[in-house]
Amino acid sequence: MPDSLTDHLRRGDLLAPQCPSRAVLRAITSQWGVLVLMVLRDGTLRFSALRRRVGGVSERMLAETLKRLEAHGLVLRVAYPVVPPQTEYSLTPLGQEAAAHVAALADWVEVTLPALRPDQSAELRA
Amino acid sequence: MPDSLTDHLRRGDLLAPQCPSRAVLRAITSQWGVLVLMVLRDGTLRFSALRRRVGGVSERMLAETLKRLEAHGLVLRVAYPVVPPQTEYSLTPLGQEAAAHVAALADWVEVTLPALRPDQSAELRA
Repeated sequence: MPDSLTDHLRRGDLLAPQCPSRAVLRAITSQWGVLVLMVLRDGTLRFSALRRRVGGVSERMLAETLKRLEAHGLVLRVAYPVVPPQTEYSLTPLGQEAAAHVAALADWVEVTLPALRPDQSAELRA
Repeated sequence: MPDSLTDHLRRGDLLAPQCPSRAVLRAITSQWGVLVLMVLRDGTLRFSALRRRVGGVSERMLAETLKRLEAHGLVLRVAYPVVPPQTEYSLTPLGQEAAAHVAALADWVEVTLPALRPDQSAELRA
């Protein structure tokens, strides 16, 4: 089998509507997915602490976001059998890689913000 | 004024719910925003050609996505006064920077796909 064909079969294609890579990218770049990955770069956190760090997220949305990231092997969930239940979340090695890319983009957005004319986005809602 | 304070005032903070950087990041990392930035890295395109390259996007969603990216100064829209109307889209220098970060993440997702267990995402819909 030629290398090019092997490559084609082995890697995703985000421009193909049915490619499962789109679901992975959506999990990573979802509104809360991005922020969860950023925050977990600093280390393991319990659900409540994670929610405090990611300002503005609801319990339900945070739980869904974590479930999706866990399903793709990016986040590790460890539940301790204690009373009350204690659950900790951390990045897997793959999650660390994804988070590094996300953090590079996020950092660029934060630094570049003054040039990005965000106030004009109000026009779009009008 | 100490440098740290100046920095704080000058750059965005994505973990603050009210920071306008969140709207910018959402525009860039939206489902179609990511793909539009990727495709426009290859050069200027007309609306219809852009839509063909970004598989699966509706006319309305593509128009909204482009409007948002344009509002943040990431995409340049040039309308030629001809009949029928002709409109071309390209990345601004800032858009090129954003697109480079997005492409790095997208490339990682495509290459890493086999390890990302995307099939398990079906469980989340069950």
